[in-house]
Amino acid sequence: MLYLPANARYSMEGKYFDEAAVSILQDIILHRRDVRGNRFLSVPLEEAVIDQLLTAALHAPSVGFSQPWEFVLIRDEVVKQQVRNSFQEENSRAIPQFSEEKQPEYIRLKLEGIMEAPLNIAVFYKPSDKPVLGQTAMSEAGLYSVVCAVQNMWLMARALNIGIGWVSILDPEKVKQVLRAPSSNKLVAYLCVGYTDGFFTQPELEILQWEKRKMKEAVVFKEGY
Amino acid sequence: MLYLPANARYSMEGKYFDEAAVSILQDIILHRRDVRGNRFLSVPLEEAVIDQLLTAALHAPSVGFSQPWEFVLIRDEVVKQQVRNSFQEENSRAIPQFSEEKQPEYIRLKLEGIMEAPLNIAVFYKPSDKPVLGQTAMSEAGLYSVVCAVQNMWLMARALNIGIGWVSILDPEKVKQVLRAPSSNKLVAYLCVGYTDGFFTQPELEILQWEKRKMKEAVVFKEGY
Repeated sequence: MLYLPANARYSMEGKYFDEAAVSILQDIILHRRDVRGNRFLSVPLEEAVIDQLLTAALHAPSVGFSQPWEFVLIRDEVVKQQVRNSFQEENSRAIPQFSEEKQPEYIRLKLEGIMEAPLNIAVFYKPSDKPVLGQTAMSEAGLYSVVCAVQNMWLMARALNIGIGWVSILDPEKVKQVLRAPSSNKLVAYLCVGYTDGFFTQPELEILQWEKRKMKEAVVFKEGY
Repeated sequence: MLYLPANARYSMEGKYFDEAAVSILQDIILHRRDVRGNRFLSVPLEEAVIDQLLTAALHAPSVGFSQPWEFVLIRDEVVKQQVRNSFQEENSRAIPQFSEEKQPEYIRLKLEGIMEAPLNIAVFYKPSDKPVLGQTAMSEAGLYSVVCAVQNMWLMARALNIGIGWVSILDPEKVKQVLRAPSSNKLVAYLCVGYTDGFFTQPELEILQWEKRKMKEAVVFKEGY
């Protein structure tokens, strides 16, 4: 039963994926890692590769097809250093928030690769100036669309054997100043992107026993809580 | 140059993806659609398939490896109907927010598949009761981790030729009441999941010319705005 509103140009297709596609996607998902500074190689990324990452981002789902994303590509050392200064400030503020037991471990962790990664990408949410279909009851849906774009890029990067690290220990307002971003834009993600010397077999914080992996049974409910 | 903190058990591996993997991932990304009610088939989803979707979700990136997600699987018609009531209320509130020109088109759109999809998944953010690494400067990073889990599921569903529709026209507090969710949890996404009679070649709202696709040049900046 096709739903065909007047004056719509519709076309359906039967693009059908096989078991091999499922298996490859699962491998990409399971082998994706958050890559830190000490792993990045300084070799620059080819333009075609950056284009492939952006194409993945631009085909993310977005509420009301609003595509509310903007991407700033950063290679300039001076700009990177200014962003890194914000990381250092925020990271110093973070340390005392952890337990005395956790603090020495926290300090040992390398939590960003802003200078080491040949490319940084700041990802912004740009709010629409008119109402957005699907965003009237949950205004945060626009931000979530931008996160879907980040995750598409992250998986495409892994398929291309490129590492991405998401730096969230930053003052978003300082980063906006550095990049002269419009005041209504919101910084969603700051990504460090580059080839790496390898990928860990498990998340680094799992290997370091900072946190344990949660079991499916602990987080899946049926019909309600 | 390996970074090896004392007492860390490290293992790196050279899992290397080839061109074919890149091409398959790109196909999955480009063919993923937001699927509405009139496309879902009523055939139930196999448990193994639901498990595969959840495995994809649980391997999403999460800030500080906090894995702050919870999933409620819903098949009960009574529960679904209660959620759908919230959709209907919020959708009625949405209509007058659009221009007079857009309203007739908005009313014609089928924007959810709550009853038609054999499975609904409510996806929640569960805040941590202790400080989370990486979340000290940007508290929204936890919500974003949950969105990454949704996008992983969405892509895995597409590889399995299963449709997902994200319903955001809901009152999150009403959905929480229906599902008896803990008050500190936040509803991030409400997904309709099921086999479909096909996937559109383009996003439905693009075909209907509700919104235009943005060009890369319009949303990519270099070194700053």
